[in-house]
Amino acid sequence: MTGQQNMLKMMSLKHLLVISLALNVGLISRVMEVSREEKHVKKVKDAAGSKTVSYSSFLPTSTAAPAAQDDGSIINLDHGDPTMYERYWQQMGDRTTVVISGWQLISYFSDVRNICWFLESAFANAIVRLHKQVGNAVTEGRHIVVGTGSTQLYQAVLYALCPENASEPMSVVSAAPFYSSYPLMTDFLKSGLYKWAGDAYKFSKDEPYIELVTSPNNPDGASRVAVVNRKQGILVHDLAYYWPQYTPISFPADHDIMLFTFSKSTGHAGTRLGWALVKDEEVAKRMTKYIELNTIGVSKDSQIRAAKILNHVADSIEHGPESKRSNNFFEFGYNLMALRWAQLRAAVHRSDLFSLPSFPSGTCRFSGHHFKPQPAFAWLKCERDIEDCESFLRCHKILTRGGKHFGVGPEYVRISMMARDEIFDRFTDRLSMINS
Amino acid sequence: MTGQQNMLKMMSLKHLLVISLALNVGLISRVMEVSREEKHVKKVKDAAGSKTVSYSSFLPTSTAAPAAQDDGSIINLDHGDPTMYERYWQQMGDRTTVVISGWQLISYFSDVRNICWFLESAFANAIVRLHKQVGNAVTEGRHIVVGTGSTQLYQAVLYALCPENASEPMSVVSAAPFYSSYPLMTDFLKSGLYKWAGDAYKFSKDEPYIELVTSPNNPDGASRVAVVNRKQGILVHDLAYYWPQYTPISFPADHDIMLFTFSKSTGHAGTRLGWALVKDEEVAKRMTKYIELNTIGVSKDSQIRAAKILNHVADSIEHGPESKRSNNFFEFGYNLMALRWAQLRAAVHRSDLFSLPSFPSGTCRFSGHHFKPQPAFAWLKCERDIEDCESFLRCHKILTRGGKHFGVGPEYVRISMMARDEIFDRFTDRLSMINS
Repeated sequence: MTGQQNMLKMMSLKHLLVISLALNVGLISRVMEVSREEKHVKKVKDAAGSKTVSYSSFLPTSTAAPAAQDDGSIINLDHGDPTMYERYWQQMGDRTTVVISGWQLISYFSDVRNICWFLESAFANAIVRLHKQVGNAVTEGRHIVVGTGSTQLYQAVLYALCPENASEPMSVVSAAPFYSSYPLMTDFLKSGLYKWAGDAYKFSKDEPYIELVTSPNNPDGASRVAVVNRKQGILVHDLAYYWPQYTPISFPADHDIMLFTFSKSTGHAGTRLGWALVKDEEVAKRMTKYIELNTIGVSKDSQIRAAKILNHVADSIEHGPESKRSNNFFEFGYNLMALRWAQLRAAVHRSDLFSLPSFPSGTCRFSGHHFKPQPAFAWLKCERDIEDCESFLRCHKILTRGGKHFGVGPEYVRISMMARDEIFDRFTDRLSMINS
Repeated sequence: MTGQQNMLKMMSLKHLLVISLALNVGLISRVMEVSREEKHVKKVKDAAGSKTVSYSSFLPTSTAAPAAQDDGSIINLDHGDPTMYERYWQQMGDRTTVVISGWQLISYFSDVRNICWFLESAFANAIVRLHKQVGNAVTEGRHIVVGTGSTQLYQAVLYALCPENASEPMSVVSAAPFYSSYPLMTDFLKSGLYKWAGDAYKFSKDEPYIELVTSPNNPDGASRVAVVNRKQGILVHDLAYYWPQYTPISFPADHDIMLFTFSKSTGHAGTRLGWALVKDEEVAKRMTKYIELNTIGVSKDSQIRAAKILNHVADSIEHGPESKRSNNFFEFGYNLMALRWAQLRAAVHRSDLFSLPSFPSGTCRFSGHHFKPQPAFAWLKCERDIEDCESFLRCHKILTRGGKHFGVGPEYVRISMMARDEIFDRFTDRLSMINS
């Protein structure tokens, strides 16, 4: 695509935006504000588009063609299904294709000398390599435990940390708004080992507890530290979103128990893989025991595939500047999230019913970018007299997850920012048309 | 390999057996009995070897060359690791090689219209196709729920069947000897929903219960039916070993809840896949909910691979007689298990310290073979004054699982029959040398 063609496409996009604005006569007073957001959208698009011709194909279809007309169908952004990454992996063609013969990976065992005897060494090596390159977590002196998603690892951690013969189940807390699955995963089997004790800010018992520190936080994207800070507490850090497409990487996380998931780092949710970096050997052993009793290990096919994918990501950030521009996985994710957040903020400003959290800027030690967090979920608040934001948006056929699931009020909803381009574009278009 | 060469190999094998016998001077009185078993071994080998040249490669290496000298190292037959199937899959070369591109299977979702929304339709179709061909289970009017091994499905079933608000956890029983993992899987989280209540024969409470019916049974290979038979009972049939390599298929199983596992049907334990055939929609929904909360679905990579492998198995039993002789998966498994059981029985007879269960013969409606069950595990009893069979065998560096794990006495051990050829051959050689 030549610069002239690019210019023409951009012009027609601006033209459409002007028409869209003209429809909202009542919004003229806010045009200045919207204009500022649009300038940011354009800036993000220009920055990405100017890098290299091949790079432009990583941007949403809306940069190359006007967004499809909204057909009024249901837009489901309830789950954090990371399908926005599909386009990048399509672009990579066969580079991460995995080939597994029928006679491979038959045994239950991967490496009986390892505490986590079902961990494939290729997967473990790829994890260590990537963390070292990105600088988001310390891997030295850590045991790696693989799980069927970080969901299974979360349950493995609870089993590992709670004494078998305690008279009362151990309390598990997290600061609200907390990940909506924590209470469900903790309590669904009515375990005598642990129980959900709600918002960490409200926890006042003088007894042992586990505090989940999710940073960046799901649902609201905030950077977090422990809030209870009492002697008998054990911390579990859920770092699913501590990757440079979502937030500036400020330091290598160095906690006792850190959970990561493949689905939010590279987008491969269907592979169902997560990993824990665990300092204490006994905890790693007990977690491994949990997974042995729960599922006798973790799919080796997925581990082998994940090793290939993680190594590609590591290659893409290691190679020379030319390769970097066209293939750098985190640049793709960073640019796409930047664009989406600019689109969303523009839509929210154009309507007058919603608000979004604001974040402080930071410099990413991995990429060098100075930016504000651009989380995988938007934590949207309905303003004015809308009491139930989830129901309100459902009337507009936008499915989100309401605040009560996260331990707060119904004026909030969590919205996935990780849908496919056409879904996300339709969502921001529709949101911008909702006004009082 | 020509008939002449075959003859020579067989001669040298016989020669070795004669030397081995000569070493056991005290056993001369039992030579007639041993000789009968050996004739059976030879008959099984001959039957397999005479079929086709390519077929002979499916037999253990011991048929083509004398067994390797016993180096005295540890022989681990504690776990049911089904590595004996590796050789078949190696022979199949690229026929079941799976190729997965980086952009495939990214989403959490497989088919949102299906109750089990994370079930890949290719896997579901392959399951139905194979059950129909083998005739071992009714699939009509059943919901399929996929799990990370039947281990996860077992826990999903317990969650599905136990009311959430009962005052007491529901009792779970199984007739001893029962699968050693049942008590552990049931009780390790101290669930308030269910609790292990031990041997079904001893269950006398007048309250709701779940009875696990494992048929053929792990550890002892027996065909089983429910034993409690009270009004408030719910039956769960674990049919992991109801395949024609292990037992005559006498009828298509037609129970409300049936569990199967990929690891014991085709040998792919590392893939961690199982499936449940479930009549009741609500039970299928609750099982799906369990897997959603426990692991948010099941590896799609493994499901796609399993679909290819199961379809190959179905092809191998569908195609013409030529293909059947060389590729029929169940014929491979049937012949190998027949040979191993003959080897084991010969070794047990040559020693005078052990005994094995006997089984009634039956005709397999799938294969037409008339045979006695040849289970995936041997349930060995130490005779004479050996009180702890597991410890006794451990002194001989043979690792097995003792009877107490299965709810019975320590005079029994469970021994995996599914190890690689060289391990199994070393095991039977060593066992035959142990005597009083």
